[in-house]
Amino acid sequence: MLQGNAIVAQSGGPTAVINSSVAGVVETWLSNPDAPGNIYGGISGIKGILEGKIIDLAEQKRSVIEGLRYTPGAGIFSCRHKVTAAEQERLIEVFRKLNIRYFFYNGGNDSMDTAYKTWQAALAADWEMRVIGIPKTVDNDLAFTDHCPGFGSAAKYIATTVRETGIDLESVSTKNKVTILEAMGRNAGWLTAAAALAKRYEDEAPHLIYLPETPFIKEKFLADVEKVYKQLGYCYVVVSEGITDENGEYCFAAAGGRDDFGHAQLSGVGVALKDLIEAELSIKARCNTLGTAQRSAAHCASKTDTDEAFLAGKTAVEYALAGKSGLMVTFERQSDEPYQIRMGQTSLANVANVEKKIPLDWINAEGNYVTEDFIRYARPLIQGEVQMPMKDGLPDYVRIDLNRGRL
Amino acid sequence: MLQGNAIVAQSGGPTAVINSSVAGVVETWLSNPDAPGNIYGGISGIKGILEGKIIDLAEQKRSVIEGLRYTPGAGIFSCRHKVTAAEQERLIEVFRKLNIRYFFYNGGNDSMDTAYKTWQAALAADWEMRVIGIPKTVDNDLAFTDHCPGFGSAAKYIATTVRETGIDLESVSTKNKVTILEAMGRNAGWLTAAAALAKRYEDEAPHLIYLPETPFIKEKFLADVEKVYKQLGYCYVVVSEGITDENGEYCFAAAGGRDDFGHAQLSGVGVALKDLIEAELSIKARCNTLGTAQRSAAHCASKTDTDEAFLAGKTAVEYALAGKSGLMVTFERQSDEPYQIRMGQTSLANVANVEKKIPLDWINAEGNYVTEDFIRYARPLIQGEVQMPMKDGLPDYVRIDLNRGRL
Repeated sequence: MLQGNAIVAQSGGPTAVINSSVAGVVETWLSNPDAPGNIYGGISGIKGILEGKIIDLAEQKRSVIEGLRYTPGAGIFSCRHKVTAAEQERLIEVFRKLNIRYFFYNGGNDSMDTAYKTWQAALAADWEMRVIGIPKTVDNDLAFTDHCPGFGSAAKYIATTVRETGIDLESVSTKNKVTILEAMGRNAGWLTAAAALAKRYEDEAPHLIYLPETPFIKEKFLADVEKVYKQLGYCYVVVSEGITDENGEYCFAAAGGRDDFGHAQLSGVGVALKDLIEAELSIKARCNTLGTAQRSAAHCASKTDTDEAFLAGKTAVEYALAGKSGLMVTFERQSDEPYQIRMGQTSLANVANVEKKIPLDWINAEGNYVTEDFIRYARPLIQGEVQMPMKDGLPDYVRIDLNRGRL
Repeated sequence: MLQGNAIVAQSGGPTAVINSSVAGVVETWLSNPDAPGNIYGGISGIKGILEGKIIDLAEQKRSVIEGLRYTPGAGIFSCRHKVTAAEQERLIEVFRKLNIRYFFYNGGNDSMDTAYKTWQAALAADWEMRVIGIPKTVDNDLAFTDHCPGFGSAAKYIATTVRETGIDLESVSTKNKVTILEAMGRNAGWLTAAAALAKRYEDEAPHLIYLPETPFIKEKFLADVEKVYKQLGYCYVVVSEGITDENGEYCFAAAGGRDDFGHAQLSGVGVALKDLIEAELSIKARCNTLGTAQRSAAHCASKTDTDEAFLAGKTAVEYALAGKSGLMVTFERQSDEPYQIRMGQTSLANVANVEKKIPLDWINAEGNYVTEDFIRYARPLIQGEVQMPMKDGLPDYVRIDLNRGRL
């Protein structure tokens, strides 16, 4: 077995369960008597590692590591940072200096790109390393895996909220008869589509769902809303922040600039549609924009998702100790009912920067809802609730002491 | 005892626990062997009663009435409708025709105004009636009661969300370093202030809270945000939708018109502040606008609140059967720790159209946070969680069959 230390770091937007993966890494490493070194945490992802912000995670209280299983946010902090070639080289120097031979990177597409490049840089520098990516994203848009940890909990929260706000909408008979919920999802509509899980009855919310996968046409949208409104007296619309027009341009995109990876900063689609409905149809509308609550609502986490996030971290350690490298842990579905998965793997080179979208045949012909295929896929992922300690009426989430065990 | 039937109806914006009060009314009435008649439900509040949309609630399945204890929205539908003098007279005719002698109206300020006028109209028409108001509002702005059912659950949801999105904010080190949460509350800041319950550590969210009770000054706000940002590297702001400037005018008020009661339709404060911060301080910001989720998030309801909502309905029936009328049920706090309340009453004439605001000495001198007095007041109201049946990973809320038992 390759002797040396390990480091785990988090990258990109947090999820309700990203910390559960870190717990999986740390607990699996520390409970393995053959583990060949220490387990470090890089503070603020790759950026912090470059700056030498590293802690020994064995120094944390055991209750804190265990508490990561139900605590949202990125417990050892995250970053969005595109690593330059020069930084890649410096990174390998840091690894050499601290004798780090195992690198676990917990993130989405961009982070898998970073992990891939780090692995390549290590190979080029002749520094033998095991580099394993641990998938994480509420967007569920990583390819070569059935689904991503983080999605199931966000989906459960969206579906719960749509059911509740849908009941609210139908029960007030005299105003604000259209509710719009804007959901996350830049180019892939998985989280937006998850709203469909809320529907039990034909007339229950949501009534219309608009995804980035199919072009958004204003006139069609207004006709759709008017039709539902005339039929029921109210209408619940769920829309992805990333809907695009027939030319593939983002609709109502705010002049919010672009991030480090060149992605457009989106916002305001829901409010724009509310204004559109009020102006064109003269129906009072409301817009709920849950924002970062979608990726942090651990109080509404899916137990299936939380357990799988832990399992992804555990599997990453097992793969690395077995000598594997340059891979991302994946989930392979064996069956929908009963729901069964097994762990798999894919090359980081495969997954980096590829976005998995909803299959077009899971979207109805009208382009305003999803099919039963999507429901069958998504429903198992939102099952079960997570028990967490409550204090003073609120979830008592833990905090990693970032000054403890500082290298 | 006055012989005749009873009717219960709901009015105004729903809450997570408004149905628990209806369950309290119905279960208390039906379990009393001396109850002098049937218990009806008016569909869509006073508006539905005028239209003769009335059902016999004893016809509902028992499991449905029991399920109201944890189901959000207005189970027998609600309305916002200012009753005219002519409608008041017609209402008494409906009551005469159906021999309704007991009227329970579950709502906020406007609804208590309606209940008061109905009581007066009955007196004028010489139709002996017991009219009891059951308080309900997430805004917590009814006077002459320590607090209102609905507030505790909304407060728990806001505080939970602020804790979770606050952890999210602090854990991503490279972008969107200001999060703004826009909370409900037209003229009273109770729900906005409840965000303060989330804070455990000095540097934890929320950092700044702006309420309608004190004037909002842009320059001061920007200086506040900049100060926190320079100190911590991030800043979490909670703002009421109803903040006003030094002249008492709503800030950034949308041209959304006014409702039936003449209240301005507010929206967009959070987004306006996000734009302001980005323009003036060049710090990337995000805005979360939870909207109607604040008043319907029953999955995060407070058990204390849910139980008290039931108790308010139960007490209303007891008062009425004891011969009382023209009253609203109130809560009188006996002690904060241990938390103890007793039920009280106040004249509907007192409470109608009066708004209770946060005492100014519960707001800090800077006008950007609340004091420990507020925390002591609010904390007992968010205690405990409500267990509800789950199905397919989501809360399995009930639906009253509005066609069943139709009169």
